[in-house]
Amino acid sequence: MKPLITVLTIAVDDLARSFAFYRDLGFPTKGIIGREFEHGAVAFFDLQRGLKLAVWPRDSLAHDVGLAKSPHSVTELSIGHNVRSEQEVDAVMQQAAACGATIVKAAHKTFWGGYGGYFADPDGHLWEVVFNASLIPDD
Amino acid sequence: MKPLITVLTIAVDDLARSFAFYRDLGFPTKGIIGREFEHGAVAFFDLQRGLKLAVWPRDSLAHDVGLAKSPHSVTELSIGHNVRSEQEVDAVMQQAAACGATIVKAAHKTFWGGYGGYFADPDGHLWEVVFNASLIPDD
Repeated sequence: MKPLITVLTIAVDDLARSFAFYRDLGFPTKGIIGREFEHGAVAFFDLQRGLKLAVWPRDSLAHDVGLAKSPHSVTELSIGHNVRSEQEVDAVMQQAAACGATIVKAAHKTFWGGYGGYFADPDGHLWEVVFNASLIPDD
Repeated sequence: MKPLITVLTIAVDDLARSFAFYRDLGFPTKGIIGREFEHGAVAFFDLQRGLKLAVWPRDSLAHDVGLAKSPHSVTELSIGHNVRSEQEVDAVMQQAAACGATIVKAAHKTFWGGYGGYFADPDGHLWEVVFNASLIPDD
């Protein structure tokens, strides 16, 4: 198995709401597709080369996997978004809040010497926006 | 905000167990680091350029975010692993099972014309191993 993730799918309770949130954040998308299939409606967002974010109704994921739907768990995952400066952390947190995110933990100096904060998307999925001098994104 | 994920952190109940699972799958890692910090122990795995997978104890994530720990939810996310052929789907599913994954849904023809299956890591995090002629990974 190659060390590779091609799509991160997060379960959502309201597809239109989640689609609007990530679209408004500026994530490129072709919109909600797959409506012609039962449990098929989904939206993909293009991230860096080779990676997409998908928002898919929780009912559809449960149906596709063949498991009972389980309630949201806020401490299941955290999506890391490294940026190039502390100022960019603040800017991204402000932008997310303006798009309807919940600021779960305001940006602050971290215990390991960086600077970051957490926001949650409309379903409570955590994003950590962070500056780490040892992990600067390419662009 | 750039459309970018740099680290996907998944919450785990037993860091040593999760570390061994992903190491045995062949994901490159420098091992468990950060033990010098309370709630700091974590393991990173290098995925494609610019992206890491992190396994972090659920207690530590909850502490860092400042939220109460919530129980695991199997329908929270699905980590997509696209491969280049149906045969590679089968091979990866077999490899994952040999490393201790639970086969949640055996590989099968999907409703949208692809071929794939789901396995779960030791904490129940879903991976979808999939062949999609429209989304072939780079390598």
